Amino acid sequence: MVEDRSSDAAWLAVRARVRAATPLVHNIANHVTMNVTANALLAFGASPAMVHAPEEAAEFAALARALVINIGTLDATFVAGMEKAAARAQALGLPWTLDPVGVGATAYRTEVCARLLAFRPSVIRANAGEVLALAGQAGGQRGVDSLAASEAAVDAARRLSAATGAVVALTGAVDYVVLGEEATAIAGGDPLSQRVTGTGCIATALVGACLAVAEPGPAAHAALSAMKAAAAGAARRSAGPGSFAVALIDALAE
Amino acid sequence: MVEDRSSDAAWLAVRARVRAATPLVHNIANHVTMNVTANALLAFGASPAMVHAPEEAAEFAALARALVINIGTLDATFVAGMEKAAARAQALGLPWTLDPVGVGATAYRTEVCARLLAFRPSVIRANAGEVLALAGQAGGQRGVDSLAASEAAVDAARRLSAATGAVVALTGAVDYVVLGEEATAIAGGDPLSQRVTGTGCIATALVGACLAVAEPGPAAHAALSAMKAAAAGAARRSAGPGSFAVALIDALAE
Amino acid sequence: MVEDRSSDAAWLAVRARVRAATPLVHNIANHVTMNVTANALLAFGASPAMVHAPEEAAEFAALARALVINIGTLDATFVAGMEKAAARAQALGLPWTLDPVGVGATAYRTEVCARLLAFRPSVIRANAGEVLALAGQAGGQRGVDSLAASEAAVDAARRLSAATGAVVALTGAVDYVVLGEEATAIAGGDPLSQRVTGTGCIATALVGACLAVAEPGPAAHAALSAMKAAAAGAARRSAGPGSFAVALIDALAE
Repeated sequence: MVEDRSSDAAWLAVRARVRAATPLVHNIANHVTMNVTANALLAFGASPAMVHAPEEAAEFAALARALVINIGTLDATFVAGMEKAAARAQALGLPWTLDPVGVGATAYRTEVCARLLAFRPSVIRANAGEVLALAGQAGGQRGVDSLAASEAAVDAARRLSAATGAVVALTGAVDYVVLGEEATAIAGGDPLSQRVTGTGCIATALVGACLAVAEPGPAAHAALSAMKAAAAGAARRSAGPGSFAVALIDALAE
Repeated sequence: MVEDRSSDAAWLAVRARVRAATPLVHNIANHVTMNVTANALLAFGASPAMVHAPEEAAEFAALARALVINIGTLDATFVAGMEKAAARAQALGLPWTLDPVGVGATAYRTEVCARLLAFRPSVIRANAGEVLALAGQAGGQRGVDSLAASEAAVDAARRLSAATGAVVALTGAVDYVVLGEEATAIAGGDPLSQRVTGTGCIATALVGACLAVAEPGPAAHAALSAMKAAAAGAARRSAGPGSFAVALIDALAE
Repeated sequence: MVEDRSSDAAWLAVRARVRAATPLVHNIANHVTMNVTANALLAFGASPAMVHAPEEAAEFAALARALVINIGTLDATFVAGMEKAAARAQALGLPWTLDPVGVGATAYRTEVCARLLAFRPSVIRANAGEVLALAGQAGGQRGVDSLAASEAAVDAARRLSAATGAVVALTGAVDYVVLGEEATAIAGGDPLSQRVTGTGCIATALVGACLAVAEPGPAAHAALSAMKAAAAGAARRSAGPGSFAVALIDALAE
């Protein structure tokens, strides 16, 4: 059973703590969405930094309040930085969140995700196809987009959460925050979110910001709720996906 | 002689097929314009993915309906991925398009383009300076911008098409789709397209989307026509190049 | 003592020279802000190119009228390109500007900056925390954001200028152009500049554009003055940081 326990008071309180703390969030991000992700974190009230070089990723993670790893445009240099940062995060007890973009599409992505999962992310933020792939089911992915509705992946998310200990933040037309058997639905948002690149990456980064001030379950819930609210607000002021992407940043800052 | 055979019906039909198919377009893109290129492909109705690592580029190309290679910010890692993906595309008969950004400006760019041309792109999308450089004429380029008008490169485009078998999509104030001796002009658009980065990259990526559903000639014609129409529409709603770039994505989604 | 010698006539004259010359500006930039930096340079009237590969960075620098190096998302490949380009710039007498993003945050950044400073940048554009770090003082930095007000770093900027021979373009709520003992304040702008990523990077790139047509002191003054004016204008047309970033590009083009 999936409960709808969304509460405006809860996520607004987490956001208020982010804004009060302005936490430094260390991102090892992807080339496509680094700019919008950084702007979303700034709008939300965090202090983002994008640092990926293996020479400094672990040292930088130790300065941060949370770590975000997004494999969207991974290559050997970035993966080396990701592993060093994730290892340091695990050693320090620093919360971190993984965005397994396109896992299952290629052997390389699947293998890199397996290595990163060994460092025990606090939250995995993924679409249905990615959750199905991580849970060992094929067929839900086309490139980096999911073909499956999020509902179809809730049970897989439960298994993934049980197997990894992570909260699974499963996003789609309806989002789900899954911890073990417990799944909380978050509705709202707008279909335009699927028409611009980076809304998933932004959600992951906001999870990171919230992890700096809250436990994984409430952090994931707050980040996804904030995105749903911002998307709904932005859609009302948009003439299409281009202006929606701009209005989304404005809305996150409100 | 250059014919003006632009037909709204023809390119709108190709766009309709893209929207019906939502083809996965594999991009090995450049750092400057990855975000706007992905958003343009989404707005146009395709499903973009940016994947460059040599470890997965060939495997990913085999999943896609078309491949787009843009050398704008090339380096050894990206070039290795480009060569693997292009080789796989050629082996599979997957259509692909090359954007030889800044070819002729440095020996490295020229050499990489020569290697990529050996994999027989379906379409080469380039400005006048780049077409002149690829056709063996110097002097048309300043950095990555062309100093020559597109008209001045139509004959070079004919030679380039004859030498490579590719359709040449030559862009400028007037665009030309060139296949062998045949050259079709496409007028329209707006000068603001020259004032924002990425309009050439977007045109190339849209060629890729159209290659998933049409032959190279009609695909190039549809992509360039769509860009001219979107630019003209966006310019009417813009206060400058910043708002033009946003409105261009909105216009591509209409 | 800090003089306020800002003069609209002076910076507008430099901008007019940029627009007349359309100088090719070679950027080795960071992943987060490459797109907005390229668009800002185009809006301002320059011709930007982002070229980082060690195979071509020196050759490309020799084609340019100015070089801009920004270490925001440095790694070994980019650093190799930076060193080759900076060495060529020094050898040719090509003016160049360094943006030491996050210097002091990690040993790697500090070491890379030391190596780059040996190539004698014409201008160092930095926030207070970065200036304090370069001048050998700790404690002013959180990630890539400065915790210190620019005023607190003016003396450090004087020492940095004396030690390096560079003009220091120190930015914050108030900007300072520092050459040796002389410091000129530039007020204005808008606090929204701190809420979007890339305003510092854009300022650095505009310094590069101005270096193509003016001496380092006037170039830095013109670039920072242009940014203050554009930010003030953009803020009046913005509903938040997302629309501010767009309006900033429009304003730079006016």
